[in-house]
Formats: sequence, C-alpha cells, structure tokens
Amino acid sequence: MILALSGGVGGARLCQGLIQVARPDELAIVVNVGDDFEHLGLTICPDLDTVMYTLAGLHNPQLGWGRADETWHFMQMLAQLGSETWFQLGDRDLAVHVERSRSLAAGEPLSAITAKFCERLGIAHQVMPVTDQRLRTCVLTRDQGELAFQDYFVRQKAGPVITGLRFDGAETAALSGPLKQRLASPLGEQVKGVIICPSNPWLSVAPILAVPELSRWLQSARIPVVAVSPIIGGQAVKGPAAKIMRELGAGTDTLGIVAHYGDRVQGWMIDETDAALAGAIRDRGAHVAVTQTLMTTPEVAAALARTAIKLLDELQ
Amino acid sequence: MILALSGGVGGARLCQGLIQVARPDELAIVVNVGDDFEHLGLTICPDLDTVMYTLAGLHNPQLGWGRADETWHFMQMLAQLGSETWFQLGDRDLAVHVERSRSLAAGEPLSAITAKFCERLGIAHQVMPVTDQRLRTCVLTRDQGELAFQDYFVRQKAGPVITGLRFDGAETAALSGPLKQRLASPLGEQVKGVIICPSNPWLSVAPILAVPELSRWLQSARIPVVAVSPIIGGQAVKGPAAKIMRELGAGTDTLGIVAHYGDRVQGWMIDETDAALAGAIRDRGAHVAVTQTLMTTPEVAAALARTAIKLLDELQ
Repeated sequence: MILALSGGVGGARLCQGLIQVARPDELAIVVNVGDDFEHLGLTICPDLDTVMYTLAGLHNPQLGWGRADETWHFMQMLAQLGSETWFQLGDRDLAVHVERSRSLAAGEPLSAITAKFCERLGIAHQVMPVTDQRLRTCVLTRDQGELAFQDYFVRQKAGPVITGLRFDGAETAALSGPLKQRLASPLGEQVKGVIICPSNPWLSVAPILAVPELSRWLQSARIPVVAVSPIIGGQAVKGPAAKIMRELGAGTDTLGIVAHYGDRVQGWMIDETDAALAGAIRDRGAHVAVTQTLMTTPEVAAALARTAIKLLDELQ
Repeated sequence: MILALSGGVGGARLCQGLIQVARPDELAIVVNVGDDFEHLGLTICPDLDTVMYTLAGLHNPQLGWGRADETWHFMQMLAQLGSETWFQLGDRDLAVHVERSRSLAAGEPLSAITAKFCERLGIAHQVMPVTDQRLRTCVLTRDQGELAFQDYFVRQKAGPVITGLRFDGAETAALSGPLKQRLASPLGEQVKGVIICPSNPWLSVAPILAVPELSRWLQSARIPVVAVSPIIGGQAVKGPAAKIMRELGAGTDTLGIVAHYGDRVQGWMIDETDAALAGAIRDRGAHVAVTQTLMTTPEVAAALARTAIKLLDELQ
C-alpha cells in the first residue's frame, strides 16, 4: 500500500498516473483540505474536487480546475442578482458543493462524503481528506496581514507578497477516519511508502503534513518517502510556487524544494531540464530519478508514477 | 394603492396584468410563503419566485414554474451523485435560491432580499412576502397524516386526499416589514382595495390570510375586496384546486369558491363560461363581473386587471 499526498492540479495528474499502475488495494490518496472554504453558504473543497474530477476523467484540463463540458448559467444569474462572483462555480460542479454541504450539515464526515462521491463517479481507488475536521490555510502577507486562502489565491490571484503561512485548526485536527484506519492497519496492507505529488509544497502539501498524527506517523514509521519536484527549470508548472519561493527566500529552483522537505524525503524525481541538479541532491544523501515530470498526457503521468514506485522499491 | 394577494402561476399572471395598468405607487403585491421550504440546504420560495420571474418576463410559461431559457446540468450531476432529485432546480433558478439562502443566513429579512432581487431584475412594482417569519403550509391527508407542503404537492403530485390544512407558524407570524409599513401608512397611499388573485384559495391564499395582523386589518379597514375565481367551468386552470374542493366537500364550481371566501369578498370576477352563476353570486349581495378570466396572453391579463380595478372602484 502506497500513500500519495496530493494538492490540486499537479498532484491530481500524478494520481491519474498512479491509478493506472497501482491497484485500488495498493494505493490510497490523501488530499489537502487547507484550501477548503465556505462560500455562498456552501463548503467548497477545491483539491478534493480536482482529484476526484481528474480520476473520473471529468476534469477541465484547460482551466486546471472544475469540470469539462461545463456551463455557467448559475454564475450569470448570480451576477445579475449582484452576488459575489469572484469564485467561479460551474453548473455541474455546483451539484458537488450543494450535495456535500447538505451532507455535512446532516452530520456526515467529509471522508464519507468523498468516498460516496468517488463511488458514484466510478473511482475505484480510495481518495480521502487528510482530516474530517476544519483545517484552513491562512496566508500571512507583507501588505494585508493575514488573508483567507481563497481570498489570496483566487480573489487576489496570488498577488500579495507572502511572509508566512498558518494552518488554522491543524494542531487539533485528527486524521480522517479512513486515513486513521490505513495507518493503524495491522494487516498486509501496511503502508510501504509515501509519494509526495508535485503540488505546491507550501500551499498544498504543508497543510497535510501539519496534521500532527500524520507527521508523527511519518517520523516514527521510517518508511520511504519520495517526492516529485513541482519546479522545472526554476518555473512552477502551474500556480505561484516559484513566486512564493522567492518571497519566502526559499531559493528559485528544485534545490529550494529539496531543502524545504529536508530529511523527510529520501527519493526525488526531477525533470530532465534540471538534470544538472541531480548531483547536488545526491550529495545530500537522497536518491534521484531524472525523468520527464511535465505530465502532458496520461501516459507520461503513468510513466512518472512507475518511476515513483520504482524509486520507493529502491529505498525499501 | 391596491394590494394584490398572490400565490404562484395564476396569481402571477394577474399581477403581470396589474403592473401594466397600475403604476408602482398604485400597487403592491403580497405573496404567499406557505409553499416555502428547505431543500438541499437551500431556502426555496416557489411563489415569490414565480411572481418575480413572471413580472421580469423570465418565467417559463410552459412549465408554470421556474425560468425560461433554463438548463438542467446541476440536476443531472446531482442525480449522478445519488442526491434527491424530486424537486427540479434549473441552473439559472438555482442562483436565486443560493443567494437568498446566503442572505437569510446573513440575517437579511426575506422581504429585503425579495426587494433586492426585484430591483436587480428590473421590477418596479413592490413585491413582498406576507411575513418575514417562518410560515409553512402542512397538508392533512386521509391516508398519510400530515405532509409538508412540497412533499404533498411536488413529490406526491398532489395525489393524497386532503382532509384539512394547517399553517404552521401563522399564529405568531408578524407582517413583513414593508407590508406593515403599507398597512400603517398615514399618507395618501392608504390601501383603497384588495385584489385576491386567481390562486388556489386553500393552498395559496389561505396562508396569506392566516397571518393574524392581515386578517384583522382586512376586517377592521372595511375596504373593498375583489377576487378572481380560479375555477372555470368546474375545472382549475392549473393545479389541484378542483380536486381539493371535492375532497374538502367545498363544492365543484365557482360557487364553492364564493362560499369559501364568504363575506370577505364583495366583488367577483368570473369567467364567461360560468356566466349562469352570476345571479346566484349577486343574490349573496356581491358584485359580479363576467369576463374572460383565462389569461392566455399578457393583454388578456391586463384587461382582467382593468376589470378588477373597475370593480374595486364600484365598491368604494
């Protein structure tokens, strides 16, 4: 059993590769909930939805969020009514938010709702939030103090300069039910490795690792952890990772990512563009696989997933 | 100033006629809220929406509810997720329910939300709920005990045999803010008459009249009340009015409607089909106008509205 830790689009693409090469009993996907927020009375979980839509083949590859084959009539009418329109909600996508919010209000845990949705969408592999409790990423900015994540990320298009991050609720967040079960399992399905997907280390992966039970387990279990760098040639494939690295003084390339994770990661997958950095990473004692990390097709994603699993095997 | 009391589709059509012949300072529309309910975490107000959509020219004349030019992608996805689909919510329509629910949760009264929506949709005439408080029509049935209104009306398609009605919350419901203001006004805009629209007397108008302040005002103000019969030739134009009349032993034609309202109505508009009943109604001491009450076009609705206002003038 492998645990994949995933944020939104980059992570979801690797997960799309992983489900092609690992059976449902060999892989469980743990998703960030720090981006989740309440909007128009609905609870919206962007990363869970991106993973779910991607694995179901329903995602919008152009936008990187939301559904393919989407319409926007709800938003058009919402604008006519003078309501908030800075966060786009497609007509089909909206059903997920409404049904999730209804289920949460009825007392169902987020993990159970996620499992139900995945089953309805034909996803065989387990997808779960890291916690069923409230965990919210707050962005500390140079000029505007603390911002709620989606205010920073969507409303302000990741423009404000970041000085730090805070994961509200993380300290008291328990693992979600199914994740707790996975990590406690006494059977043959013990976790044999962790893959950190190429999601933003500060915005998407850090909130997952901020759940104390998970970070303690990672330290004590002493199982191999491999990661795919989300930076290629000093650029983020998508999103503000490179900008945030500069703002946080965390370097400008994959070496900054490697330094950020430090001893927590023993195996790295870096892009061919960054082949020259492999030596420096090996000098830190980590294994390195140099390969194509830009997942332009599901086939490339599957190849990258195979490389990740092979790297985990090497580290056993 | 005329007050029109309206339920859904039949009432909304007469209101569409009234706004053609009465200025915004001459007409206020009071709408039933007994059909309102909570569904999927949203507060839905079917009659307010039907009136609003009709006056804005956005209504769906084929369905008799919801929006013209509607799409159903939200519902399709909701079905895919295994959620409740017995109450249809169009993609554009949904924006009204989401924004209303958000505004209610933020503490705005329903009347203020309704006024805001009407302004955004270009409706100049005042439309208001009879109360801002919770008032819910409960249907007492022969075989299933008490049913929530939409369970009876939509889910069970008005099939169960009715033995009575209860308007939960009516006894303690206060008039909505703008209605209270209208009825208390000391200025020249005193109400000079009330028009009961051709909405279902038991399901749509009774919940309005069940608000104690309104019925007391009607009794004490001694202003003329005219009504349009929703029954033509013993048939309801739309909906279960005729079926309910039979079940409640209230007759099978317009005379049953006349008897139901009793002294509360002094002027009747009945359809040409029912011209033979005019004598019996006049024998009860009421005025009668025989005209086309089936509002096949906005022009017919405007003509009916003119007749209603003329009848009110006669009764001054």
